[in-house]
Amino acid sequence: MSDLVDELLAGKHGALARVITKIENRSPGYREVVSALHEHTGHAEVIGVTGSPGAGKSTLVDKVAARLRDDGHTVGVIAIDPSSPYSGGAVLGDRIRMASNAGDMDVFFRSMSARGSLGGLSTATTDAVTALDAFGKDYVIVETVGAGQNEVDIVRTADTVAVLVPPGSGDDVQMLKAGILEIGDVFVVNKADLEGADRTVQQLREMLQGRSTAGHHGVSGTEMAEVTGTPTEKGAPDETEAWEPPIVETVANRGEGVGAFLAALEDHGEYLDRTGGREQQARDRFAAAIRTLLREDANRLLAAELDRQGGIESAVDTVMARETDPYTVVDEILAPLRACLDEE
Amino acid sequence: MSDLVDELLAGKHGALARVITKIENRSPGYREVVSALHEHTGHAEVIGVTGSPGAGKSTLVDKVAARLRDDGHTVGVIAIDPSSPYSGGAVLGDRIRMASNAGDMDVFFRSMSARGSLGGLSTATTDAVTALDAFGKDYVIVETVGAGQNEVDIVRTADTVAVLVPPGSGDDVQMLKAGILEIGDVFVVNKADLEGADRTVQQLREMLQGRSTAGHHGVSGTEMAEVTGTPTEKGAPDETEAWEPPIVETVANRGEGVGAFLAALEDHGEYLDRTGGREQQARDRFAAAIRTLLREDANRLLAAELDRQGGIESAVDTVMARETDPYTVVDEILAPLRACLDEE
Repeated sequence: MSDLVDELLAGKHGALARVITKIENRSPGYREVVSALHEHTGHAEVIGVTGSPGAGKSTLVDKVAARLRDDGHTVGVIAIDPSSPYSGGAVLGDRIRMASNAGDMDVFFRSMSARGSLGGLSTATTDAVTALDAFGKDYVIVETVGAGQNEVDIVRTADTVAVLVPPGSGDDVQMLKAGILEIGDVFVVNKADLEGADRTVQQLREMLQGRSTAGHHGVSGTEMAEVTGTPTEKGAPDETEAWEPPIVETVANRGEGVGAFLAALEDHGEYLDRTGGREQQARDRFAAAIRTLLREDANRLLAAELDRQGGIESAVDTVMARETDPYTVVDEILAPLRACLDEE
Repeated sequence: MSDLVDELLAGKHGALARVITKIENRSPGYREVVSALHEHTGHAEVIGVTGSPGAGKSTLVDKVAARLRDDGHTVGVIAIDPSSPYSGGAVLGDRIRMASNAGDMDVFFRSMSARGSLGGLSTATTDAVTALDAFGKDYVIVETVGAGQNEVDIVRTADTVAVLVPPGSGDDVQMLKAGILEIGDVFVVNKADLEGADRTVQQLREMLQGRSTAGHHGVSGTEMAEVTGTPTEKGAPDETEAWEPPIVETVANRGEGVGAFLAALEDHGEYLDRTGGREQQARDRFAAAIRTLLREDANRLLAAELDRQGGIESAVDTVMARETDPYTVVDEILAPLRACLDEE
């Protein structure tokens, strides 16, 4: 296991791939590996790309990765499909093959999928980013299909989140509902050569103006701050500067607008550095990771304790017979834990 | 507190109202009250009513409640609005006033809202049903606004779930996505006098045929069984009988179809009794309640333990400094619990 970590740190792509497989499958020892890698992280620029199916995410990500590589950077791409129980379906398979046929390991492409819970997938994504960061990739791109809460959780792993909107789809309204509008640092209207693109840009602009008002005065202030790096109490970044998300138009399959998109990502990175937002976001992410892991581990411990005390079916029997009730059952299961914590 | 329970059990509506307020606000002592009431439950017929906004739920529920009362039954109605942070908005206020002005306490109407988490609202609904059941209401109707996952969780409190579909809305497709189709035991196309109603009935029929195939052979079998009372391993109900959800047409504001709707609810109740589905559903609900409470209580315990060990900010400091990592932090927080459980 420590060999695997050493090989990854020595720049072996095979070790990197094995580590991510371990993380995805939650194979024995994955926690120790991620723990050991953590101290080598903190150097990669992490970019999240999300948007509804058909928005052109994978095409744009491929072009961005190629451009970054041409500029001399190394890139890791993790494509997440929360709806698929399998890793690397037909479409992703093609992209992996393309990348590996070219022998182009400066762009390391990897798909991940939902094996366990979606909460688990979000944790697994964070861990995979840790592996790519520790490996030494300059850029890590997290691409996710769809635009629901799960995707929001997944792309929060990123320093900068790009949201893709297909033109004339009315999808902007859908996104607003799913909270995607709140998490975008850069918006991209891809397929900008199609009819309706101008209208979509206009709609987006109006919605973002609404958002920035809400962000400064309204209820969503705290949540926005957490994600976009606008000021929060802790870390005391510059209170006077707010980030105004740009809207970039691209035609990804022809490579148009890719440069402007990269410039927008870079602008946001500089904004994060200037305001202290990058550190604040990292803090928020680690706090969230600790809480999530704590919850998951505790649930496993308690499931074991429940089994030890006779199992759920036996508890349900007594509740059905009205000998006891759910609250009392739970109090009894937790009693030894409470006693033990009180003793300390 | 035991006075409050005694008064509720003695049939005092004021005590019932105070208990539900206690439950909704999670006021001190609510757990003990619900625990004490549990042994008096198991007699009410619990009906869930859901569907998209504008489907006519509240009108239909009011008519159903009035009809049940005219037939000599007592009724409790809980109207849940997960999107509202306030209890009893303008609309609900009108209904409460209407009911109480009439001095008609055979129909006890109560609204509840999201004060804390939505998971909490689902637990609070279960507890409010416990209160109404222990009070001795023959029927408890749980009405919820909307058609998302939260509503699905809330109406699962019910023995029989009715799903309302407005005609010609295309909402059937929306519902399918939200998993509402899977949880309906009875479907109602309300406003059946409007244009498009026939087409909606036809669409629903086709979708339900798809569902019943999936239910018998497909992936959704287990989940359907849990909700609709179709056979599962435990409890061994009649394997040969499956429930075919009827589609009832109503014009609630004119009272049309209310009788047919009640007959469909009764059919489903008899089906549950005949097949053992009622007991199985109760078991599944109690098991889910125990797991949810266990998770919530454990999270509170662990938050306290995290604070005791220095708090989240101090943990994040060390993770940021790469002195430790989230997995190690969590292992250390849980170490005393593990040690204590191992000792037993």
